[in-house]
Amino acid sequence: MKQAILARSDLGMTPGKLAAQVAHASLSAYLKSDSKTQKIWKRDGQTKIVLKAPNQNVLFEFKKIAEENKIPAVIIKDAGRTQLEPGTITTLGIGPAEDSLLDEIVCDLSLY
Amino acid sequence: MKQAILARSDLGMTPGKLAAQVAHASLSAYLKSDSKTQKIWKRDGQTKIVLKAPNQNVLFEFKKIAEENKIPAVIIKDAGRTQLEPGTITTLGIGPAEDSLLDEIVCDLSLY
Repeated sequence: MKQAILARSDLGMTPGKLAAQVAHASLSAYLKSDSKTQKIWKRDGQTKIVLKAPNQNVLFEFKKIAEENKIPAVIIKDAGRTQLEPGTITTLGIGPAEDSLLDEIVCDLSLY
Repeated sequence: MKQAILARSDLGMTPGKLAAQVAHASLSAYLKSDSKTQKIWKRDGQTKIVLKAPNQNVLFEFKKIAEENKIPAVIIKDAGRTQLEPGTITTLGIGPAEDSLLDEIVCDLSLY
């Protein structure tokens, strides 16, 4: 099992800002998962991949696809205290889900 | 309340690799916290700061300081499937904890 986190590459986020938004998406999608999935994913080392989304529409598209496949997915908006405008959509957390299913969904995206 | 995640700046991690390791530390420290702290932190928007640690010894030093202050702290080792040697220590998640206490502990570190 693994998680995919999609992050916008069009916002000019610093590495630290990106990391905080990815962590927010990862935790939020984890919390939306069922406890059996949570347990298996943690036991197997919490595998995560971080992928580039060129704009916010891509995040909404992949959220829809994930949910059609019954995978929990959470969009994150930044609180806007620092680098970004308040309410800026930054990341999408998907899963944990089965590797093969998740790979099929996100196969066209590049690693961040 | 907030979380601090310290990440090594001497490993040459890509932004995506860094983000995945920070997310791992964030979730692991969250899971080590008591449920009241978890609830307050989530209600207040899961604030996180990502800070630079120049080497792995700094991670161990801050883990010790955090634990002396009764704040949960978790060191993350990379599974080493991709960019790093297996077992490389990458990040330290601290908290959630009170803003003022955490700021005092990490005030000498720079934002990532």
